[in-house]
Amino acid sequence: MQSGLSWYVYTLKRLLLMKKTTLLINCPDQKGLIATVTNFILEKEGNTIYVEQHVDHALKEFFMRLECEFDSDEKKLARFKESFNTNVAAHHQMHWEMYDTDKKPKMAIFVSKYEHCLYDILGRYASGELHVKIPIIISNHADLKPIADAFNVPFKHIPVTKGNKVEAEREQISVLEEHKIDFIVLARYMQILSSDFVDRYPNKIINIHHSFLPAFPGAKPYHSAYERGVKIIGATSHYVTSDLDEGPIIEQEIVRVSHIHNVQDFILKGRDLEKIVLSRAIKHHIQHKVLVYNNKTVIFS
Amino acid sequence: MQSGLSWYVYTLKRLLLMKKTTLLINCPDQKGLIATVTNFILEKEGNTIYVEQHVDHALKEFFMRLECEFDSDEKKLARFKESFNTNVAAHHQMHWEMYDTDKKPKMAIFVSKYEHCLYDILGRYASGELHVKIPIIISNHADLKPIADAFNVPFKHIPVTKGNKVEAEREQISVLEEHKIDFIVLARYMQILSSDFVDRYPNKIINIHHSFLPAFPGAKPYHSAYERGVKIIGATSHYVTSDLDEGPIIEQEIVRVSHIHNVQDFILKGRDLEKIVLSRAIKHHIQHKVLVYNNKTVIFS
Amino acid sequence: MQSGLSWYVYTLKRLLLMKKTTLLINCPDQKGLIATVTNFILEKEGNTIYVEQHVDHALKEFFMRLECEFDSDEKKLARFKESFNTNVAAHHQMHWEMYDTDKKPKMAIFVSKYEHCLYDILGRYASGELHVKIPIIISNHADLKPIADAFNVPFKHIPVTKGNKVEAEREQISVLEEHKIDFIVLARYMQILSSDFVDRYPNKIINIHHSFLPAFPGAKPYHSAYERGVKIIGATSHYVTSDLDEGPIIEQEIVRVSHIHNVQDFILKGRDLEKIVLSRAIKHHIQHKVLVYNNKTVIFS
Amino acid sequence: MQSGLSWYVYTLKRLLLMKKTTLLINCPDQKGLIATVTNFILEKEGNTIYVEQHVDHALKEFFMRLECEFDSDEKKLARFKESFNTNVAAHHQMHWEMYDTDKKPKMAIFVSKYEHCLYDILGRYASGELHVKIPIIISNHADLKPIADAFNVPFKHIPVTKGNKVEAEREQISVLEEHKIDFIVLARYMQILSSDFVDRYPNKIINIHHSFLPAFPGAKPYHSAYERGVKIIGATSHYVTSDLDEGPIIEQEIVRVSHIHNVQDFILKGRDLEKIVLSRAIKHHIQHKVLVYNNKTVIFS
Repeated sequence: MQSGLSWYVYTLKRLLLMKKTTLLINCPDQKGLIATVTNFILEKEGNTIYVEQHVDHALKEFFMRLECEFDSDEKKLARFKESFNTNVAAHHQMHWEMYDTDKKPKMAIFVSKYEHCLYDILGRYASGELHVKIPIIISNHADLKPIADAFNVPFKHIPVTKGNKVEAEREQISVLEEHKIDFIVLARYMQILSSDFVDRYPNKIINIHHSFLPAFPGAKPYHSAYERGVKIIGATSHYVTSDLDEGPIIEQEIVRVSHIHNVQDFILKGRDLEKIVLSRAIKHHIQHKVLVYNNKTVIFS
Repeated sequence: MQSGLSWYVYTLKRLLLMKKTTLLINCPDQKGLIATVTNFILEKEGNTIYVEQHVDHALKEFFMRLECEFDSDEKKLARFKESFNTNVAAHHQMHWEMYDTDKKPKMAIFVSKYEHCLYDILGRYASGELHVKIPIIISNHADLKPIADAFNVPFKHIPVTKGNKVEAEREQISVLEEHKIDFIVLARYMQILSSDFVDRYPNKIINIHHSFLPAFPGAKPYHSAYERGVKIIGATSHYVTSDLDEGPIIEQEIVRVSHIHNVQDFILKGRDLEKIVLSRAIKHHIQHKVLVYNNKTVIFS
Repeated sequence: MQSGLSWYVYTLKRLLLMKKTTLLINCPDQKGLIATVTNFILEKEGNTIYVEQHVDHALKEFFMRLECEFDSDEKKLARFKESFNTNVAAHHQMHWEMYDTDKKPKMAIFVSKYEHCLYDILGRYASGELHVKIPIIISNHADLKPIADAFNVPFKHIPVTKGNKVEAEREQISVLEEHKIDFIVLARYMQILSSDFVDRYPNKIINIHHSFLPAFPGAKPYHSAYERGVKIIGATSHYVTSDLDEGPIIEQEIVRVSHIHNVQDFILKGRDLEKIVLSRAIKHHIQHKVLVYNNKTVIFS
Repeated sequence: MQSGLSWYVYTLKRLLLMKKTTLLINCPDQKGLIATVTNFILEKEGNTIYVEQHVDHALKEFFMRLECEFDSDEKKLARFKESFNTNVAAHHQMHWEMYDTDKKPKMAIFVSKYEHCLYDILGRYASGELHVKIPIIISNHADLKPIADAFNVPFKHIPVTKGNKVEAEREQISVLEEHKIDFIVLARYMQILSSDFVDRYPNKIINIHHSFLPAFPGAKPYHSAYERGVKIIGATSHYVTSDLDEGPIIEQEIVRVSHIHNVQDFILKGRDLEKIVLSRAIKHHIQHKVLVYNNKTVIFS
């Protein structure tokens, strides 16, 4: 039996000195991948705490997420990455990313006039529920500045008109780069981003929108859904690609409605859904649980 | 206090001698409707056991469903209906229907080649779960005859081709009339019914189909949904109108899917959903809990 | 057809001038009860907006909840009540209560040291979600006073010791009477109320506690449930009777747990449950949807 | 890139020639366990297809479930087990079990007079849903023999009286051994098994019983729960230990009830729950997803 004391020393070291990382890998499916990767980590003074895998048998693609601890400083970790790339990833045609688990990613929020998603995100942020930094909120309207102020988050008003779209996006990008933003959340931002903008942040822009069965494409979808008498309304969160509203889906949820609900009830229930679905998508992203492949997502548990 | 004996006599009479009816009413909203109707029933030797109401404030329309018992024979009940029509309904611009609660409606099932919904309905029918008679199953293919035989339900094969559609529908109608069919369930019947056919059975034809967020209009919707990486798939049951798949929705339900499910899993989960949603819609219809107004449904509880 | 104008006048009158009331009735089951009551209301210039009923066939007891509108002032309403009592209730052995729907009942909160339920109730109160007034929070400890202050709700510290229990309850009652309290919520109040106290507020004291399958009677139930490896934890809200924790159950809910949750997770999930269940019970009570009979509740929808 | 052909050869080999095994391990938590085990498997011509882990930080215990494929025959696999025991398990104080994934375990069913669970299990068995063999049903009554006959499963009637309990269990054990039974399901078997019997089948006897919040210990728990007016009823499946109804819980589930349900509804809902919970527990067991430690279960996903 391991002695109690040595276990405590081990635990203490894990908590204080060790570097926690999350590793996301995908590559063509083949034999020995789990052993190869976990063993390489062990050889390099690392320890795999948790592994999850998925194989897409139709695409013959292997996906893995590892939580690891390294008895290392930054320099050693950089050497690990280099070595992993040369000695493991290259041999197996791996696409891989490695994240410092303890480091909070920097998230920008884009808003327009609807406040419900912004309130929800900032409330969770203030309570410590979201492991992120929010250096900046960007909006094409000034309306929501007081909310940003109340939560002490900087707010940048960049008006967008038909004529100034290119300049506006240039200014947005400059603000994002200045704050070293890792990813963007469109919290009911009512402008369409250009392909140029979107291509700078592949799988780094999270959007939320309502979704219905059947779909109602017009301007007032909640009114159409109400007129149609649907029994279910939904919301979808996805990464933004240049193909509008067609990016990889991260999360969806629905809520039942009935004849007793009027169109205003539909809208309120829809807003509650949007908050829930968007915040779940943000959490998946922050925890590096999303792996995008072939315009779809693998969501690790 | 009411004596125990008199209560038992009352209960026995209710169970054996009384005529149970279900009354569905809608009319412009106005004062005193509940009292007016329940009081009229009481005056005519009836008793209201259960009432439910709904007011659509946007349309200013009142909806009510009553379960009543009448100390009456058929003749008296016919007089009640006449009197109700003259003395109550006419004064309040009511649309109303009255059903004999104990009488099993006659339901025809239309099928093609998919058997899952047919199996589900016949299983529930055999176990006594559905308060209906099923005098006939009609199909454009002979494939599912053995299932009908196993459940001792007559099966009529009426082939439908491009050329014989009108004749085929004429034959279907003749079979339906011969069996005095009250309503029709399309249990994955893969032919489109003509407007002429549909108009003969307003709010009497129940259909089931898959439904997705977003919608996938093509030929293989489950494949499209899988390609798209949706996290939710759904099914919708509705009354058939001449506007294809746009009739009043009776019931919808969804099930979550994830990256671990392949397209075959999607299809299997979709079939299970279709069974559940269709059987719920059938039950609502049989129990006279559905009131159609303005191409939408009020579903009483 | 009713003209649009007359409908608007009617709606305006309903909103501005009419007295909205909720009527709860139970009595031995018998014929004509719905008609009798709704008709009497109509005769007295009232209108029944919504009715719900339930019959307990084992106990032969009838239960009804009505939402009514009266074209009346307070004086007329008082006459209605008197007349209803003499002409309807007495004839049918009715137990009945009538509430002014628009009047906010006065609710006192009792707390000790746990703050989660208090925070939840005051948050809902501040957002307007609860149709109540909260004139006073009473506690046997001073710890939660800052929360009361933050929400601008008066806080009364009444210490309870082994020796002063009778005096403490006398002081509590005096405070409750001074504020004309209608009902009391024990938001994790850790003292047992005496029978004398409880008997003053029959079905007017709402309590919340954890509940498990199986039950764990000891001092640290969450620890016991964790040790036992349960897969579900629950919470129960009930009216307090002199039979401790055995009063009529208003609401229960559960949440799934698994081996990945430690005892701290159990406690946190249990607290979230307690908040949800207690707030649902409070809402049912405020909306006069709870009818207690035979130590059980009928909860109207 | 891996060529398409080589991938198909690999897949074909996996499906046809490879030995699939499931490995369950628990041991004191320490560094490198995942790598050590998966690497050892790889060295021995095995491949780890899927791994799941759990660490109980309070008990400092590590749990792992692996699905592996071996390019081996029975003889080679036996050598692997020996080598794993000597070279891995012994060094880490591992408790481990290895199962042939494709081999159907042999399950005996014990029943008395209630048929609902038996019907449910045999229905799932007949449809191929359960990866087991059922060589024998044992009952202390003859009542359910026709059901066993209908599903072509042998049925052994072993009466149990106050006086013959020891002999009856001896006969039961003899039947179980004759059929090389791997585990036992008590599908509402109404006799208490002796400690002697239970100790022969540690974590191999699965039981089902109702469970309530609060608990109702008497003879008619559904009646008690109904009298108490509970809003939730539950069921629990667990391994049988000599401490009656106190063995490790495998699965629990609940269903909501309300005042509209009578005691018969409670019982019917309870039976449906028992079926669902028991069948889930059986599936977890069959798939080797349950690891018992410290009288609790880890249920892998």
